[in-house]
Amino acid sequence: MLTLYYGSGSPYAWRVQLALEHKALPYDRRVLSFSQGENKRPDFLALNPRGKVPALVDGDFVLYESAAIIEYLDEAYPGQGQRLFPGDARRRALQRRVILEVNDYFDKAADPLWTQAFGRKPEERDLAEVAAGRAAARIELDRIAGAMDGDFFGGRAPGAADYSLYTILGFVRRCELKVPEVALADMIGPRYAGWMARIEALPFFEACIPPTWKAAS
Amino acid sequence: MLTLYYGSGSPYAWRVQLALEHKALPYDRRVLSFSQGENKRPDFLALNPRGKVPALVDGDFVLYESAAIIEYLDEAYPGQGQRLFPGDARRRALQRRVILEVNDYFDKAADPLWTQAFGRKPEERDLAEVAAGRAAARIELDRIAGAMDGDFFGGRAPGAADYSLYTILGFVRRCELKVPEVALADMIGPRYAGWMARIEALPFFEACIPPTWKAAS
Repeated sequence: MLTLYYGSGSPYAWRVQLALEHKALPYDRRVLSFSQGENKRPDFLALNPRGKVPALVDGDFVLYESAAIIEYLDEAYPGQGQRLFPGDARRRALQRRVILEVNDYFDKAADPLWTQAFGRKPEERDLAEVAAGRAAARIELDRIAGAMDGDFFGGRAPGAADYSLYTILGFVRRCELKVPEVALADMIGPRYAGWMARIEALPFFEACIPPTWKAAS
Repeated sequence: MLTLYYGSGSPYAWRVQLALEHKALPYDRRVLSFSQGENKRPDFLALNPRGKVPALVDGDFVLYESAAIIEYLDEAYPGQGQRLFPGDARRRALQRRVILEVNDYFDKAADPLWTQAFGRKPEERDLAEVAAGRAAARIELDRIAGAMDGDFFGGRAPGAADYSLYTILGFVRRCELKVPEVALADMIGPRYAGWMARIEALPFFEACIPPTWKAAS
């Protein structure tokens, strides 16, 4: 049995859960409470010394870092469910490139959005920072869009790159609830809006929505 | 023929060159001059819209982001030279985890070292910042050390994780030339110093030293 150490609202934990569902792998989800510091307790630090989610336990094997976990699932369970990465080396390389771009460039570009939504009191928010974050995020989305291969980055079905970007955009949507000027639909444009809707139509999508978000909506 | 777009002194380009040599793949190295802005010219932006090195061209296939390139080389040329990643899924996952840790945590931890060495005039340097960078970098090295599998992260031979970390530490050594308080050997300790020496003893190591560094030494 696989155990996923998870924190509600973490896009990195969310993407791993989507990957587990994509592959129809049975798993046990252990939800750590950030507000109670459960991710900084010694028993979890023994699994991941940085106290970050996700972490995956597979028998006596422990793995952290979401991109490594998702690829591990595909390789350790090749016959199980749908693949998360294409078989062709070039197409697989482009998926990995997109995941790196999401984590290293899109995430940084959109940083002002998290900062203004979750790091500032309403009266302290700087809408010029929100506008700068939106503009930078849009540039990165345009750069990444070329790797979309039909309906999804993964081609006819979603894959690792799709879940990796989707969950970060899902987090942007949470920012929009606090700061309407984030205006996600306008920021991402119709191509990405259609792509998000296709991911949200997946049969396992609903079950993976972070529980605290569900409770709040 | 493979073409590597390279910039002298870029640890990301350097690691790809080491990977190409490791696999004994023939390649043409095109050196772009950062000071002349060659990486921001339209012909290179057509290959990588962010104007960053490395970029790899393999026939009609273009790829950027060093971690994706290195893994592509191993997968597209499986029978060529030595492997860059182990065959076992768990060991491969740990190599990927280390590469993510090098790029996402070690690099950020050591950021004050680059800033103080290359972003400040000698009289403006803040040695407290250097000390903070050293301490943070040391914590990350200690976290990563557990994944060393004998002589190398890759086991009996170096692999993708070794080259990815080595080249960043090589860049720290350049910082030490400007700021002796970086004190690399003391910062990394004997375990990593021995590991660096083993990489430096590789037959192709010398040929891969960034040309501007060679000229300056």
